[in-house]
Amino acid sequence: MKIHTLTIVGVGLLGGSIGLAARQRGLAQHIIGVGHQHSSLELARTRGAIDEGTLDLRAAVTGADLVVFCTPVDLIVEQALVVAERCPHGPILTDVGSTKEAIVAGLDGRLARPVRFVGSHPLAGSEKRGVEFADANLFQDRLTVITPTEQTDADAVAEVSRFWQALGCRVRQMSPAEHDRALALTSHLPHLLASALAGMLPEALFELAATGFRDTTRIAAGDPSIWTGIFQQNRAAVLQSLQLFLDRLRDFEQALKADDRKTIDSLLAQAKKVRDALGSGNSTQE
Amino acid sequence: MKIHTLTIVGVGLLGGSIGLAARQRGLAQHIIGVGHQHSSLELARTRGAIDEGTLDLRAAVTGADLVVFCTPVDLIVEQALVVAERCPHGPILTDVGSTKEAIVAGLDGRLARPVRFVGSHPLAGSEKRGVEFADANLFQDRLTVITPTEQTDADAVAEVSRFWQALGCRVRQMSPAEHDRALALTSHLPHLLASALAGMLPEALFELAATGFRDTTRIAAGDPSIWTGIFQQNRAAVLQSLQLFLDRLRDFEQALKADDRKTIDSLLAQAKKVRDALGSGNSTQE
Repeated sequence: MKIHTLTIVGVGLLGGSIGLAARQRGLAQHIIGVGHQHSSLELARTRGAIDEGTLDLRAAVTGADLVVFCTPVDLIVEQALVVAERCPHGPILTDVGSTKEAIVAGLDGRLARPVRFVGSHPLAGSEKRGVEFADANLFQDRLTVITPTEQTDADAVAEVSRFWQALGCRVRQMSPAEHDRALALTSHLPHLLASALAGMLPEALFELAATGFRDTTRIAAGDPSIWTGIFQQNRAAVLQSLQLFLDRLRDFEQALKADDRKTIDSLLAQAKKVRDALGSGNSTQE
Repeated sequence: MKIHTLTIVGVGLLGGSIGLAARQRGLAQHIIGVGHQHSSLELARTRGAIDEGTLDLRAAVTGADLVVFCTPVDLIVEQALVVAERCPHGPILTDVGSTKEAIVAGLDGRLARPVRFVGSHPLAGSEKRGVEFADANLFQDRLTVITPTEQTDADAVAEVSRFWQALGCRVRQMSPAEHDRALALTSHLPHLLASALAGMLPEALFELAATGFRDTTRIAAGDPSIWTGIFQQNRAAVLQSLQLFLDRLRDFEQALKADDRKTIDSLLAQAKKVRDALGSGNSTQE
């Protein structure tokens, strides 16, 4: 696959990594980054993630073949509508947002042809933020979920799939709703639990917070301005997952109250079985 | 400090690491390991963690100066009583158990002089198990909590402190109850949450469980037979911490239900502040 001009909107950890990976793999002739700070765009350019940076979204897309939105989920629809207006030449738009239903619903059928949008979510990243942590290998062997609907252009789906594969990803298709229900459990609920746990640690106990606490709360260091949007857009599914979690927590609570060793042991053993099956490696990131 | 004979009861990750560290730092002339499988004792010997291994606890302590119990918390009292009976020469006994109140209460004033017990908990380790993961540097720059009471021999406290310091630890004294309340929040509750979360992941979603889920649930891979005992011995404090956690989770739940962006953002920001203060390094392990 060969892209003439790739525009990355939001050149942080993910956007920067897309730029580095695309360059390393020779996917794009020209990479334009859009940001809201000259300094981080300059850093992205110095690191080789983009060829040129601009604060002007409209100017950055006039010649783009593929535009990837790597901005907070609650900005993507608005930005994509702005881009579509400026692009009679019909680029393909995609994104990396951790929610899909609201974004796809906000764009499906609302973009004047020939502009086409395909929702994506590469399960890669970390709690770190900024192009300084960008990594050309971030997508290697990761999963990208793409979420076409009946209204999505089939050629664009194929093109976006090839793009993620060219960056090193496996690609799986899911419906936006199916994606959001799954990610509520595998990503958004864990973030909520990590934040609730981290938030209750008094300073006097910092010294006693060792590996277990640190691992369990690591993602709570994520950027609140990104996560608030994710929770808002997926709040129904997150609330459902939270109820399932509270049910399970109640099983533990009752077993503890009853001093029921056998049940505690079997709850722990079942959890260990799942966790062992996931493996200790970091072969998939979100 | 120089120990003539060091006996390690339970030569797994922690016991094996004590042996390796003691040897590397020249702390003990002779190291005896007690286990319940010839094969793992042989592996401990081959790795240099012990000089000799035996299945016979009584035989292993007759000449010991220091005996360190690295067995599940619900076995330590019984084993220490057995050892005390066999040791008219008066060794010092200590342990690495993650709970302290039940263990110290079970031994305080119950050992015939001159045998002396001092409760310890080095905050080092991982979800891994077995001497194959033992590491001479496991204790480097970690914190060990020791939990003397009014009945604890002051010389033994000083001796046990020097031992952990010689292995690379900082040492902090706390009462057994204070230790158990703190660890309920910093270690036992996180384990419970990790297990509850891991246990609810259906196999169909394994592929979608990325870094966030993996970090948050990593400790759920810990050995249930060790953790069941910890939960039993510290269930009152764990239940208290769980209530505090549920209160905080309710704050998130209400903010989500009310679609209250400001509150979600401020809960996430407060959690991030705590997590950032802990740092991303693994300078302390449990």
